[in-house]
Amino acid sequence: PTVDLNADVGEGFGRWELGDDAAVIATVTSANVACGFHAGDPSTMATTVRTALEHGVAIGAHVAYRDLAGFGRRYVDADEAELAGDVLYQIGALAGICRALGARIGYVKPHGALYNTIAADDPRGARHARAVLSALQRYDPALPVVGLAGSAFLRAARDAGQPVVAEAFADRAYTPEGALVSRREPGAVLHDADEVAERMVALVRTGTVPAVDGTEVPVQAESICVHGDSPGAVAMARAVRDALTGAGVDLQPFAAGPRAG
Amino acid sequence: PTVDLNADVGEGFGRWELGDDAAVIATVTSANVACGFHAGDPSTMATTVRTALEHGVAIGAHVAYRDLAGFGRRYVDADEAELAGDVLYQIGALAGICRALGARIGYVKPHGALYNTIAADDPRGARHARAVLSALQRYDPALPVVGLAGSAFLRAARDAGQPVVAEAFADRAYTPEGALVSRREPGAVLHDADEVAERMVALVRTGTVPAVDGTEVPVQAESICVHGDSPGAVAMARAVRDALTGAGVDLQPFAAGPRAG
Amino acid sequence: PTVDLNADVGEGFGRWELGDDAAVIATVTSANVACGFHAGDPSTMATTVRTALEHGVAIGAHVAYRDLAGFGRRYVDADEAELAGDVLYQIGALAGICRALGARIGYVKPHGALYNTIAADDPRGARHARAVLSALQRYDPALPVVGLAGSAFLRAARDAGQPVVAEAFADRAYTPEGALVSRREPGAVLHDADEVAERMVALVRTGTVPAVDGTEVPVQAESICVHGDSPGAVAMARAVRDALTGAGVDLQPFAAGPRAG
Amino acid sequence: PTVDLNADVGEGFGRWELGDDAAVIATVTSANVACGFHAGDPSTMATTVRTALEHGVAIGAHVAYRDLAGFGRRYVDADEAELAGDVLYQIGALAGICRALGARIGYVKPHGALYNTIAADDPRGARHARAVLSALQRYDPALPVVGLAGSAFLRAARDAGQPVVAEAFADRAYTPEGALVSRREPGAVLHDADEVAERMVALVRTGTVPAVDGTEVPVQAESICVHGDSPGAVAMARAVRDALTGAGVDLQPFAAGPRAG
Repeated sequence: PTVDLNADVGEGFGRWELGDDAAVIATVTSANVACGFHAGDPSTMATTVRTALEHGVAIGAHVAYRDLAGFGRRYVDADEAELAGDVLYQIGALAGICRALGARIGYVKPHGALYNTIAADDPRGARHARAVLSALQRYDPALPVVGLAGSAFLRAARDAGQPVVAEAFADRAYTPEGALVSRREPGAVLHDADEVAERMVALVRTGTVPAVDGTEVPVQAESICVHGDSPGAVAMARAVRDALTGAGVDLQPFAAGPRAG
Repeated sequence: PTVDLNADVGEGFGRWELGDDAAVIATVTSANVACGFHAGDPSTMATTVRTALEHGVAIGAHVAYRDLAGFGRRYVDADEAELAGDVLYQIGALAGICRALGARIGYVKPHGALYNTIAADDPRGARHARAVLSALQRYDPALPVVGLAGSAFLRAARDAGQPVVAEAFADRAYTPEGALVSRREPGAVLHDADEVAERMVALVRTGTVPAVDGTEVPVQAESICVHGDSPGAVAMARAVRDALTGAGVDLQPFAAGPRAG
Repeated sequence: PTVDLNADVGEGFGRWELGDDAAVIATVTSANVACGFHAGDPSTMATTVRTALEHGVAIGAHVAYRDLAGFGRRYVDADEAELAGDVLYQIGALAGICRALGARIGYVKPHGALYNTIAADDPRGARHARAVLSALQRYDPALPVVGLAGSAFLRAARDAGQPVVAEAFADRAYTPEGALVSRREPGAVLHDADEVAERMVALVRTGTVPAVDGTEVPVQAESICVHGDSPGAVAMARAVRDALTGAGVDLQPFAAGPRAG
Repeated sequence: PTVDLNADVGEGFGRWELGDDAAVIATVTSANVACGFHAGDPSTMATTVRTALEHGVAIGAHVAYRDLAGFGRRYVDADEAELAGDVLYQIGALAGICRALGARIGYVKPHGALYNTIAADDPRGARHARAVLSALQRYDPALPVVGLAGSAFLRAARDAGQPVVAEAFADRAYTPEGALVSRREPGAVLHDADEVAERMVALVRTGTVPAVDGTEVPVQAESICVHGDSPGAVAMARAVRDALTGAGVDLQPFAAGPRAG
């Protein structure tokens, strides 16, 4: 079996650093690079792209609401055309830096509040999903986009004909229905690296994870999202990677490699 | 004879508008589109690109220091790598929006304080000129860049092998040495549309303009910059255009047209 | 009878201007001054405060979500403490500029999406209303705050003990229940200056306005909001003012004058 | 003898943290709080003010050029009135947050590139010094301002009648003329905590420090600036503090305490 490991990187801004990008990029197969709207000034973006090139890790445009103060974690009620423009701007900005470095964008992944908004099956989510998809369809209808396994966004992207990649979260608990347990609930985030690693091996092998009620819930995911914004997070990412390779799982990016064709 | 007419457009931001872009774009052959650092949110950029497409006017990336509050008119002492990254980010962002609309960037023009800084023959100017040229060389060594006729930047760009386009300013007085009279001096800016138009016809025909002391000064320019940020400016731009075409001058963009190849 | 007239001013930013502040301030009794989060750089704020001082017009802090690109018209899902901090920051910033100019803040008025959010009687509105009120209670429990007549925010402010000022909108249609007709509905915005002026005279005299269905609806308002962001808006503001004074209504600010005590 | 210890704090922004503010504030007598232009969102500012209140440490407004991407370390060629407005805006914003928390601003300290620009004895420095002093004189002519010992800014502030506080840098080498050795020179920054502590004891006792050439150079300083943006920096700050108190030096803030009168 095969799976991709992705993580958020390049999330510093100017003087501020966040996480150990070199360690994270050495661990994953796909790197979600912040594009300046929630994090990621151009110099940080260039450094991150160079690191991805060194490790042969696929580069994703991690697009977000325009919200530096909130790190893209706050819903912003942008109108549809405005949000589509913001998405194109961010993808293009990263593409410009990639081009100068001999790199290329392999995929797009919405970040934070935008990710969660479009995952939801409601009018607001549908509107912002349309904005993202309208941007992608016009920019490159063959560019894969990552979204939450089982989400409304993935269905909308498939309907639009955009290639989609479903992802699971390594350190998150799942409801019996296959949704993420809300961060407001106890037990939403898993902290035991071994348990997390074991769950991900099971996910790849069986297509299911244990839900919070003990039942097995199917989660169809081609990529697993790990974190790298703390030393513990990097250790957990490595544990997941090691467990997967130890179990004979082939870690493969779903997207084109970072080097420009 | 042939010349290009260029003007700054897309210089609104969000709620704020500036100038009459439709009228300006209908008048010129090349449109310098703000890329978000001094002006130009993504929606404004998209609207501007669409207007350029409608009129078949070449699209330039109007790159600036990161300075929304100062409209890019203030020198910012960015380090070289940082500034190169900022330039790539802006070009890429506009390219992303262009790509989604079937358009393309035909050239690059530095804006405001960045334009003036790199025009100067001093260490600070040389440093920022290197940053801009390093970005362009890596992004696309065949992409033309516009600069002040006779400036240190144009020499540096030629030395680097980047295609350069020298421009003159329609409404500015020139010193006998061929430099612009400083805006701090009286008479630096010309306000008579007929006089300005006549000077530009002479410039194209003879390669000279009358300097402030009455002597004729050579100014080698392939493009003439006009303004559009006030009703009077638009009228002057039209007067320049009409005088040039009336004198048999062919108005031709130096760059590739706006439609993606 | 007595009423206050208020309008939004100081809504330029850097190079960008919006509306004719001098004309508007000469027309109203209270000026809502943008504080930098949706509009209003410090120089613009200082200019606006000076104009308010010249005309003896009360100065209000027009506080907004942090959203320059969206002009504060987009809901931003800030958490409660964060929003309270943003409100304090903006009030303080304007107070700092006022202090240097011998002026003072007479009241606070939430702007745009923040205004509409807290007007609504729902959990989201209640949360952001608490944030605004927590900021005001701690900053100055005697500082009046302006809100929509009949809104949940005004009730919450009264409950908290903050002085409240109910306002009506001169150019907006009202439902029979006393709410504003949504801008998405036809007829939401009134364009006839004479009709608008007449309605406002009736409002002050009778405490009612004609609703969209022709019934008279009670609207208890101590202030009337007029606009100034276009020549037509300024003309309408003057028509309202002239009609009110012609009808013997005394135009009086509800708040302390602009000059520091 | 008596001296003040000051350090930069509150230099995170949104998701980003910088340094260990709690440890630093527990070590110093004066805390320079970032005001949002180079760092410091309102929530971070509030947290920092609360920590200063807990430790009874004086609060300074750490004002900067508007340059979040450059952390205020890049010269920005603002005009004089614009910069004065920016300074007032930042002081006021911090004052607003202080007021809500029962705190007050005890002093002002320019940050980064602004600090260095106004320290220099040249036309550019004089212009920005005038801007800062014009803001302070109008805001509160009794509010102390911190500047580099021996700098042109301190002289200008004294001439203007603004109370001034000269500071020395604990970890910086001095030229025989009493200026800081440029960071571009080797040996500009001292890394040995014991040596640094010893130098500061000597500074307070004798009014001199050893210059890079071994001579003793007079440095008149009422405050010593220490850093806290890395674990090593905090350790050095503590070493300076312990050495000073061990040598019988009384650590006293020069400014009013953080609690509102």
